[in-house]
Amino acid sequence: MEFYIADFKQIKEGKVTDIYFERTLKTLEYLGIKDAKVRMEVHSYGLPKGYEWALFTGLEEVLHLLEGVPVNVYAMPEGTLFKEIEPVMIIEGNYLDFGIYETAFLGILRHYSSISTKAARLKYLAMDKTLFFFGLRSLHPALAPMADRAAYIGGMDGVSGAMSKEYLGVDPSGTMPHALMLVVGDNVKAWKAFDEAMAPEVPRITLVDTFEDERTEALKAATLLGKKLYGVRLDTPSSRRGNFRKIIQEVRWTLKIHGYDHVKIFASGGIDEEDIINLRDIVDGFGVGTSIAFPPSVDFSADIVEKFVDGKWVPFTKRGKWPGAKQVYRCGKLNDIITLMDQNPPTSDCKPLLQKYIENGKIVKPLPSPKEIRDYVIKQLTELQSS
Amino acid sequence: MEFYIADFKQIKEGKVTDIYFERTLKTLEYLGIKDAKVRMEVHSYGLPKGYEWALFTGLEEVLHLLEGVPVNVYAMPEGTLFKEIEPVMIIEGNYLDFGIYETAFLGILRHYSSISTKAARLKYLAMDKTLFFFGLRSLHPALAPMADRAAYIGGMDGVSGAMSKEYLGVDPSGTMPHALMLVVGDNVKAWKAFDEAMAPEVPRITLVDTFEDERTEALKAATLLGKKLYGVRLDTPSSRRGNFRKIIQEVRWTLKIHGYDHVKIFASGGIDEEDIINLRDIVDGFGVGTSIAFPPSVDFSADIVEKFVDGKWVPFTKRGKWPGAKQVYRCGKLNDIITLMDQNPPTSDCKPLLQKYIENGKIVKPLPSPKEIRDYVIKQLTELQSS
Ligand SMILES: O=C(O)c1ccc[n+]([C@@H]2O[C@H](COP(=O)([O-])O)[C@@H](O)[C@H]2O)c1
Ligand SMILES: O=C(O)c1ccc[n+]([C@@H]2O[C@H](COP(=O)([O-])O)[C@@H](O)[C@H]2O)c1
Repeated sequence: MEFYIADFKQIKEGKVTDIYFERTLKTLEYLGIKDAKVRMEVHSYGLPKGYEWALFTGLEEVLHLLEGVPVNVYAMPEGTLFKEIEPVMIIEGNYLDFGIYETAFLGILRHYSSISTKAARLKYLAMDKTLFFFGLRSLHPALAPMADRAAYIGGMDGVSGAMSKEYLGVDPSGTMPHALMLVVGDNVKAWKAFDEAMAPEVPRITLVDTFEDERTEALKAATLLGKKLYGVRLDTPSSRRGNFRKIIQEVRWTLKIHGYDHVKIFASGGIDEEDIINLRDIVDGFGVGTSIAFPPSVDFSADIVEKFVDGKWVPFTKRGKWPGAKQVYRCGKLNDIITLMDQNPPTSDCKPLLQKYIENGKIVKPLPSPKEIRDYVIKQLTELQSS
Repeated sequence: MEFYIADFKQIKEGKVTDIYFERTLKTLEYLGIKDAKVRMEVHSYGLPKGYEWALFTGLEEVLHLLEGVPVNVYAMPEGTLFKEIEPVMIIEGNYLDFGIYETAFLGILRHYSSISTKAARLKYLAMDKTLFFFGLRSLHPALAPMADRAAYIGGMDGVSGAMSKEYLGVDPSGTMPHALMLVVGDNVKAWKAFDEAMAPEVPRITLVDTFEDERTEALKAATLLGKKLYGVRLDTPSSRRGNFRKIIQEVRWTLKIHGYDHVKIFASGGIDEEDIINLRDIVDGFGVGTSIAFPPSVDFSADIVEKFVDGKWVPFTKRGKWPGAKQVYRCGKLNDIITLMDQNPPTSDCKPLLQKYIENGKIVKPLPSPKEIRDYVIKQLTELQSS
């Protein structure tokens, strides 16, 4: 075994599943049950503490997983903000045909939505400031394209993964690592070489905390590169972060009095929600890794909510779950009404969020590009802010 | 694109990398630097809040990643408890040969160690109680084998993944999902069929909270299956968990007064450290998913700490990192001494933790099985408990 990862084929074959699903199918077979038409809802009955909404992502991969399986799938469009209890997806079909996939489709939706939701929360707080996703080093490399995608559609302005052009159609973003200065052995020499070696479209953002104080290095970089210096990145080690805000303000002031007010300042290293709130008025952007890559979990579960009995759908659930398959109508800003799926819309101003994506195994809706999903997310976040 | 995942080949080719590493290599090339012999340390300068130690795992995959790259790799054995500042791995070689892999090897080590550390913390708290890992539904399915492996070697007694036999040599564990009772439409009928359909070695653990109260269902299951009932699982919905401890005690009492004291009780759903502390004296085991699959992040970073200059190693780091490549000597229970790597051991009672695993691209040590790693972890946790 080189890496302990499963590929698309194995997942599609239903091999990634909890053993109790295999045992369930065996038990149903033993009972001679061959047709068990149900509607299964995916929803979160408890968002992370302090979350009023979360972001639904991962749909594209789930559709590829369920393509060819004889089911219908209704879902919110990828990138929709949703609230507790609301169904984000409904699978309609014979439980025996799709039950084995519960582990995999929940895994996709939970992992994606957890990352995207955190990205969206940070973007909501940072808004007009630039946010780069720098979290690939937190996650198993098999998930690098997925993590960049989830963070990007969640609202990040850029991602660092070298593959992102190929996978997402997005040019990767980045600055420079400490290793560059350490291998070269001298900060000024390293910055100069970087400037000379890079294509013009690569923004010159120097890292200014390797050997000397941030203020010293920032001024040296500005003196060296002048107008060509796009920005400086401060990744101040935690042991030196008595007051990160004050360090940044001092660097800004120093650059300014020397005539370098065009130089942008980026902060990175351990950035989370409070840091963005605390620093957003004095920086131009943030590089964020771990807090997005290891986010609080958006806990979706999948529950049977209706059974097809004697020619009609009958609400049926376990204790603790609202019976019936549901539709969510959005009547303005996150003002939602939950109805039964087959019921009439509440008023004409309300828009049904769940739409049919798969009909009997065939994807029946065109899927948006990452950029389109991200635009949709930003639109919703902007609306939310104008509350 | 079906799934946004990278395979072993792409990762091995260095495609999963932050763009700034590519730009660094280009800059070094521009400078004509071809040989930059360095020692790079992987360590954590800040463990999650409240953690006095963490568990180092993921090594096997990193060795497969770096196999064939002309470097030497020293590391703690997979499954070693470590503390802040301590190096867990050192790569020695030409930075130009391995710099591109930093994203990937950190990603493997961070993701693995974060999951394994959480598993070990829970096992440390639960100790003689059974712990099942039920977290595959929280994570992208590509990582299912990795997550089961990380949780298992971290100390879990069983994992639910159907592939675990093939990948880990461990028979998968499980009970039954609510879907079984919902599809069958009747709890007693479902349990009976499960019992009749399953091979004798599958433990009969019935889920007893689907339609009726936990106490009612538990007694029905015991009456139905008698001695054959190995256990009951309570996954009580959060809205019904006024006091989970009291519910479990009442179920235990009820089973007992009816002569079913052999029936084990398992608790699942949202279990984390405090729940284990709160319930461990009254249950026989726990099923734990999200808290392990979405753990606090063990933040490793990789830093150049020495350069080879004029025929000898010279300590050299950025601000905020201890200069020099280090060895960690363990002198009894987590009583560690950090020395320079090439220094003599402090006393003869102390054992060096970092050992050579790769020599010039070749793996030079046999790698332990998952079971052996787990045994090593349990041994350390047991020692720690006897403090
Ligand atoms: O600057 C870049 O291009 C870059 C790309 C990928 C990763 N990083 C590093 O990633 C780290 C992210 O920090 P954290 O704590 O948010 O995970 C931060 O310390 C950056 O130095 C930086
Ligand atoms: O019982 C099983 O065999 C089993 C296997 C895999 C998953 N589970 C479910 O996984 C859930 C884990 O819950 P949580 O909150 O720890 O993620 C729990 O509600 C169980 O019902 C249960």
